[in-house]
Amino acid sequence: MASTDNALSIFALGGINEIGKNMYVIQYSNEIIIIDCGAKFADKSLLGVDLIIPDFTYLQENKDNIKGLIVTHGHEDHIGGIPYMLKKLNVPIYASRFTLGLIELKLKEHKLLRDTQLVEITADSHLDFEQMAVTFFKTSHSIPDCLGLVFHTPEGTVVHTGDFKFDLTPVNDQVSDIHKMAEIGTQGVLALISESTNAERPGSTPSEKLVASHLEEEFLKATGKIFITTFASNVNRVQKIVEAAKKTNRKIVLLGRSMVNVTSIAMELGYLNIPSWMLVEASEMKHIPPERVVILCTGSQGEPLAALSRLSTGNNRDVKIVQGDTVIFAASPIPGNEKDVSKIVDNVFQLGAKVIYGNSSVTGMHVSGHGYQEDLKLMLTLMKPKYFIPIHGEYRMLHIHRLLAEAVGIPQHRTFILQNGDVVDIAGAVARQTRDIPAGDTYVDGIGIGEVGEVVLRDRKQLSEDGMLVIIVTISKYDGSIIVDSDTISRGFVYEKESKGMLSDINELAKDAVNKFNEANAYAMKRAIKKVVDQFIFTLTMRKPMIIPVIIEI
Amino acid sequence: MASTDNALSIFALGGINEIGKNMYVIQYSNEIIIIDCGAKFADKSLLGVDLIIPDFTYLQENKDNIKGLIVTHGHEDHIGGIPYMLKKLNVPIYASRFTLGLIELKLKEHKLLRDTQLVEITADSHLDFEQMAVTFFKTSHSIPDCLGLVFHTPEGTVVHTGDFKFDLTPVNDQVSDIHKMAEIGTQGVLALISESTNAERPGSTPSEKLVASHLEEEFLKATGKIFITTFASNVNRVQKIVEAAKKTNRKIVLLGRSMVNVTSIAMELGYLNIPSWMLVEASEMKHIPPERVVILCTGSQGEPLAALSRLSTGNNRDVKIVQGDTVIFAASPIPGNEKDVSKIVDNVFQLGAKVIYGNSSVTGMHVSGHGYQEDLKLMLTLMKPKYFIPIHGEYRMLHIHRLLAEAVGIPQHRTFILQNGDVVDIAGAVARQTRDIPAGDTYVDGIGIGEVGEVVLRDRKQLSEDGMLVIIVTISKYDGSIIVDSDTISRGFVYEKESKGMLSDINELAKDAVNKFNEANAYAMKRAIKKVVDQFIFTLTMRKPMIIPVIIEI
Repeated sequence: MASTDNALSIFALGGINEIGKNMYVIQYSNEIIIIDCGAKFADKSLLGVDLIIPDFTYLQENKDNIKGLIVTHGHEDHIGGIPYMLKKLNVPIYASRFTLGLIELKLKEHKLLRDTQLVEITADSHLDFEQMAVTFFKTSHSIPDCLGLVFHTPEGTVVHTGDFKFDLTPVNDQVSDIHKMAEIGTQGVLALISESTNAERPGSTPSEKLVASHLEEEFLKATGKIFITTFASNVNRVQKIVEAAKKTNRKIVLLGRSMVNVTSIAMELGYLNIPSWMLVEASEMKHIPPERVVILCTGSQGEPLAALSRLSTGNNRDVKIVQGDTVIFAASPIPGNEKDVSKIVDNVFQLGAKVIYGNSSVTGMHVSGHGYQEDLKLMLTLMKPKYFIPIHGEYRMLHIHRLLAEAVGIPQHRTFILQNGDVVDIAGAVARQTRDIPAGDTYVDGIGIGEVGEVVLRDRKQLSEDGMLVIIVTISKYDGSIIVDSDTISRGFVYEKESKGMLSDINELAKDAVNKFNEANAYAMKRAIKKVVDQFIFTLTMRKPMIIPVIIEI
Repeated sequence: MASTDNALSIFALGGINEIGKNMYVIQYSNEIIIIDCGAKFADKSLLGVDLIIPDFTYLQENKDNIKGLIVTHGHEDHIGGIPYMLKKLNVPIYASRFTLGLIELKLKEHKLLRDTQLVEITADSHLDFEQMAVTFFKTSHSIPDCLGLVFHTPEGTVVHTGDFKFDLTPVNDQVSDIHKMAEIGTQGVLALISESTNAERPGSTPSEKLVASHLEEEFLKATGKIFITTFASNVNRVQKIVEAAKKTNRKIVLLGRSMVNVTSIAMELGYLNIPSWMLVEASEMKHIPPERVVILCTGSQGEPLAALSRLSTGNNRDVKIVQGDTVIFAASPIPGNEKDVSKIVDNVFQLGAKVIYGNSSVTGMHVSGHGYQEDLKLMLTLMKPKYFIPIHGEYRMLHIHRLLAEAVGIPQHRTFILQNGDVVDIAGAVARQTRDIPAGDTYVDGIGIGEVGEVVLRDRKQLSEDGMLVIIVTISKYDGSIIVDSDTISRGFVYEKESKGMLSDINELAKDAVNKFNEANAYAMKRAIKKVVDQFIFTLTMRKPMIIPVIIEI
């Protein structure tokens, strides 16, 4: 439990020692405000798990004290957990216009839109709660309408940066409000909570303007169709792609569900401008010469079901990649996705097209939305916080972020590197790391939330590596004698047709094991079968399939 | 079948459109010479598969014509398949001294050493077969004693580069013999078979000397223990680590099986010099001050069972990483291993040590053993081949290598981008891509070779994602009536204790399905159970576990 006396508590329910499922809590006395509610894609080692979301236990136990959820921006790792949270807690959601647009899309899918209170805020909003007030400042990132948050508490001011970089030559008005940040810093910041994604990278994040100019160059050079993939939510980049298409007399085809959905929200809300005469359907492409069209598609991360992946294997009915075409990756692979992206590059080369991919500092087709070391130091310098809590990063990033803070004058002992669930309590302007709160991973599998846990995953792992054998023996319930001989069914172990000998040996072993008993003792019989078969198989094959003995008593 | 008339055939049984399991064949008339026999680690999607090796079908069918296996160097992707090949074909193996040392180590493990004919060769050797002769040239790579191969055939000269880079300032005498290569080129090369690993990288591969100088700098700065990890087979780098240790008055501890084994072979054969007074056992470390020791260990790729991984989680009894220590990664992560390496970096930072990791062009702690674009162009220029076959790379690398060849004057139509198993036939100095030979992946699982195929892997995939249910009903063999009610066992699906309701519903559904029959028809009953339960579960959970109905007839 976080404190209920007159103290300020800060903790994360997700986002620390990981990139993904961001969720932070600011609590003063018994007033709770949540920041973000993200999801994380499951690593391949979490077999069958679709999504990971934060553990909401603490919030459910304290739901009457929650004033609301404030969302910094609309990326999945900040909004992806919202539908799952709303199924357990109905709290009002505060977010900027574009962020709300994306949240609404999600809530519609989960049929939660009608019962949720959504409040639009801007960088100039002022939210007054009982003990705390919240104000905002604009930041630059790779999605429109990002906000940094300022919590005015009786203990002092707490700043949460959201995701940010500084872009002094932005492509539109999505500009960091450095003057406002400086003013906040001048008034005094008790604690700064700042993102750490690019803490390992020296220098400053390049400007989005760089991408815009490289885009134009490549569009001028291309002679056939242009396929370009980027994150649909990077609306500024999409706008620049549209402008490059316009300059080179090309129309635009949108391919992929999220590209169509997000683009249409962005246009509706006024964040993106595509003249209607420029948009054509894929089915109309046959009437347009190849040098007059740009296909803007999903799949920059090599996702096997996204538009680009299907195009790369010739699986789109209306659109084909052919010799003379150009395929541009206007996004870098997120760590872990490199192999999937490479596979697509290989396939596209085999179709004979030109591919622009790889290191974005060479291609100039992508810049990060997260601040590099100099950006992070600038934020720390502007805010001059007494205490510093690096978030949104794996441990090495948090560690390096602490060193950066030290370099700009924040002593190491005033930086708190937390785990999810660790609490920083601040009372009398002194911060202490004290208690911790349940904050593990909750797995979403199909429509089940949290029902797949350690035991199930351990079984899946064993099944996935060596398969399984079910060995069924039917015995008399009176004396344990065998009524129906042992039968063995295997899956994922060996090809049954080619291994009949081994399977009949296993049946013999099971029979012998059961015959040693003079009474019907199913539990002991199963143990005996498992032991002898485990050993037989391991000696023969060096494998350890799951052995499931079944004793049927009649 | 490759040709048996008077023609030259060139093909790969592995190594094309992949990095790994290199195996190439040069055949003139009915004389076959094999180049390399590598293995590849299985991708995580190949559930439970330990290793992938080439398909040896063609070689087994033509074993009387095989003159021998010539091995270019001792890396796993060139020698890892040898024991598996020898179990099917006993052929003489030709390799340089150090390469033979590593092959012997492998054959000992597989108890194949006694029955195998091993022939040591040098760059000056000349092998005479019936129709072909083979000579050699020295190349630089990241392991000692690498050879390029020159096949003198009645059709002309075929050159196979092996793996190579050009290092004009090597750290010892492992120098590319450029003069000999030039001479081969002057005499005329019909076909060049050249590796493509770094075809995507512009410029020239940096020299190993660069690493040596950075090593010394870091050793001078370090105040506590130094942990350094690299590939054990990179003997030149190990030598430079030893020298840096000597200069800074540190002793050496070797940790990890392959580090101990490979180092001892390298010392025995004279490729590595570690004064015996410098080597200490881990157990003696407690008597040595931290600033007087270097721990040279395995695990540079984040392998979970290697020495560094165990050290990073405090699981080595004798040696601990503590605050003040320095951990150096003197190797870059191979694509796909980034996340495992990052995990270790995180853990080591948590132990409080300094870590030198990441982009090797920043740390200077690693250089590649494979030639960049300028190296590849130099080889093409030296050899001036009529035909060119890029190998040892994924498709995009082969494609770019073809563009590099074009840039130095080899017309595109004279470059053959093959698949494994595609054959280039050359007769009358004209090359044609004609037939293909079986050349898929063979999976090694435990001690089974090739017995795990598509069906087994498909089952494992289903089991891994959603688990399985076995539903057992015992019926009368006379009228099909139920004798023992349905029982359901699940694994990897849901946590059974929490899902009793669902499982008993499933039993009811199975019972109803069986009760619809008036006779004992096990096949139809199983289909009926599967259908109804599949649907029930999918509606309830959106998952598709494997359903295995079992009908026992009495």
